[in-house]
Amino acid sequence: MTTVATATDLLAMGAAAKAASRKLAAATGPAKTRALELVADGIQAHAAEILIANAGDYATAKASGLSDAMLDRMELNERRLQGMADDVHTVAALPDPVGEFIEMKTLPNGLQVGRVRVPLGVIASIYESRPNVTTDIAALALKAGNAVILRGGKEALATNIALARVVQQACAQAGLPEGCVQYVDNPDRALVTELLEMKQYVDLLIPRGGADLIRFVAENATMAVVTGGIGVCHTYVDASADARMALDVVINAKTRRYTICNALDTLLVHRDIAPSYLPAIAAEFARHGVEMRCDDASAGIIAGAPLTDRPVVTPAAAGDWGQEFLALVAAVKVVDSLDAALDHIDRYGSGHSEAIITEDYTASQRFLREVDAAAVYVNASTQFTDGGQFGLGAEVGISTQKFHARGPMGLREITSYKWVVLGSGQTRPL
Amino acid sequence: MTTVATATDLLAMGAAAKAASRKLAAATGPAKTRALELVADGIQAHAAEILIANAGDYATAKASGLSDAMLDRMELNERRLQGMADDVHTVAALPDPVGEFIEMKTLPNGLQVGRVRVPLGVIASIYESRPNVTTDIAALALKAGNAVILRGGKEALATNIALARVVQQACAQAGLPEGCVQYVDNPDRALVTELLEMKQYVDLLIPRGGADLIRFVAENATMAVVTGGIGVCHTYVDASADARMALDVVINAKTRRYTICNALDTLLVHRDIAPSYLPAIAAEFARHGVEMRCDDASAGIIAGAPLTDRPVVTPAAAGDWGQEFLALVAAVKVVDSLDAALDHIDRYGSGHSEAIITEDYTASQRFLREVDAAAVYVNASTQFTDGGQFGLGAEVGISTQKFHARGPMGLREITSYKWVVLGSGQTRPL
Repeated sequence: MTTVATATDLLAMGAAAKAASRKLAAATGPAKTRALELVADGIQAHAAEILIANAGDYATAKASGLSDAMLDRMELNERRLQGMADDVHTVAALPDPVGEFIEMKTLPNGLQVGRVRVPLGVIASIYESRPNVTTDIAALALKAGNAVILRGGKEALATNIALARVVQQACAQAGLPEGCVQYVDNPDRALVTELLEMKQYVDLLIPRGGADLIRFVAENATMAVVTGGIGVCHTYVDASADARMALDVVINAKTRRYTICNALDTLLVHRDIAPSYLPAIAAEFARHGVEMRCDDASAGIIAGAPLTDRPVVTPAAAGDWGQEFLALVAAVKVVDSLDAALDHIDRYGSGHSEAIITEDYTASQRFLREVDAAAVYVNASTQFTDGGQFGLGAEVGISTQKFHARGPMGLREITSYKWVVLGSGQTRPL
Repeated sequence: MTTVATATDLLAMGAAAKAASRKLAAATGPAKTRALELVADGIQAHAAEILIANAGDYATAKASGLSDAMLDRMELNERRLQGMADDVHTVAALPDPVGEFIEMKTLPNGLQVGRVRVPLGVIASIYESRPNVTTDIAALALKAGNAVILRGGKEALATNIALARVVQQACAQAGLPEGCVQYVDNPDRALVTELLEMKQYVDLLIPRGGADLIRFVAENATMAVVTGGIGVCHTYVDASADARMALDVVINAKTRRYTICNALDTLLVHRDIAPSYLPAIAAEFARHGVEMRCDDASAGIIAGAPLTDRPVVTPAAAGDWGQEFLALVAAVKVVDSLDAALDHIDRYGSGHSEAIITEDYTASQRFLREVDAAAVYVNASTQFTDGGQFGLGAEVGISTQKFHARGPMGLREITSYKWVVLGSGQTRPL
């Protein structure tokens, strides 16, 4: 049985993580890769004990009345464990970001000046429900040479402890420093507040979970935080859009997965294309079980259309604009112009992913330039906003802030750099 | 006469800056360049009124007993104004960072995915004494498309107001949006606290000044802060060092300018070279008026050496290690090994600039890899840590943090990026 962390233990964990991070910064690429391969192997070798721990967590959570959605998120099985091991293998196979020369130049005075990528130091993550975050974040942090302190949700405590033990054993076996991966095994919420104040030990905090958790962390953390994971995403169907493309892309953006942050929330339709497009998308939404929360103009057009498949249409409330639904619901609005669409997105968007469907070159260029979001799309589904899809190999999260990193954050985004200067006795003139 | 800002005005300034930043993000490179050229011209055209304002500030500050060092920093004259105008011209001539493609690639599914540099938004700067910060930060912020809120020290209030007016007139004349440069003309310290809480309007806060100011801002700001400007810098003279080079570099690092953050604070000398090197550097320090605060070993060696020029040598107190002197003072210590030097730097360094003087290849490589600082040097003076020297053209400051930017921060370092995705109807498979 594990001991339960207290606030004092948490400070000791911070100090241990800081000490480990110094050694980990010097770990070789092969040692880190080996550790991650052992993590992947360990997930499968210890599958039985992880699943037993998870079954216990699940029973407790079900008895306490946790929602079906939350229960689904926390539940592990052979297939999900396999997926977690595969994800760790993927990270293991990525190139080591540490030591990469970002640039190197020779100055007129002969100094060779460059920037070399180094780890950030200590990353802490506070997360909910999904136990795969334990191995995901640990793998990415380690690969980038960062020590990590993990604190998952209490509903998956035993599962996370079992997973963290697998990671720790793998690190020890691969010769990575003790303390490079630590798990806060006390579910007391007061420890979260403690952790948020440990800026002397924690260089970056990554919250993963619902909007409430992310807001709490962003407001109370004393160290750098990557905020993100909340996406109020718009797709604007321009007057010039290819209607078939606009149907396919909007359906994909809304329905491929609807509980993720890059799913469509609001559909904006130019008034010139609305009379033909809205009935067609309404029929598609009906077939996919998507409820439409419509402004007066769009509701009127749909009501007047001769549809076989008729979706649930309700009048949009003020709160539906700027709402992240995470459900088979889309707010729908007719706009008079590209400018009106841009204004709406500026007012209600969360700076995550925004798309225009258009055949008009100038409209596409204006949208790309004027929309202020992590990812701006022309003629594609916003569901592509993802570290794997964008070619980063994996992601620790999706940042909606502008500082340090924006959009999907892979290995590179959890590193820093140092300037190196190679001289031959240069002194600076007055 | 200007009106005096209140907390309510400050919120209005924040909202105006945010609104201006949206428009400024779309400003063309030539418009921004033109504005900066007008700023440079304006500094010279309004020289008389700026100098009158400055003379008033100076008289008040002198009467209130401000130190000579502070008085020197705040004083302007024709030559200093010319220098400020030149610096703005330099920034004007730099390439526009906004709109630069950081990367662009085509994915297997045909999506073209890239990252384009964009402004951060609104930058606020809180600074002391030197009025040139007003035009420096305004020029860099504008060039990178950021709106700026400035709050200088009360000792230079009239000077800064006059300078800010020059900048504002230039912006208006060049067609940049109103509110893109604003100055907080109320010296009440309570407004600083207000400003630090305006995270809804301010994307980045840059403190420029003494250690107390920077610490206060870092501890109380709710938005991202670039901390830096504090440099406890070591130069380690290895056993294998070229003695002549070690003398030149150390003297330059300490004496070229000693009130700046990249100046040498502590000299570490390997015991094998100490008997020959310490008397030689002591004689040089004596000629340059540098006081030495020595550990027992170094004091003994210097006391026993037959020197014509003998420096002031005092025993190092515990507080001298890790002290940023900003004066003609150097702490001096004999170390037994490279490891001892690395440990000392790890313990007492501030993560700014650290140097090794060595002819030993492996020692140089270990120093570069193991020292955790913004700039790590082999065989050169730490006084090179500077945006201009490193080829950035100019700098808003020197970051000693690892998040977002490290070391000298030029235009690129006060920007963010957005992901742009150009599709032809792509949808994401399940």
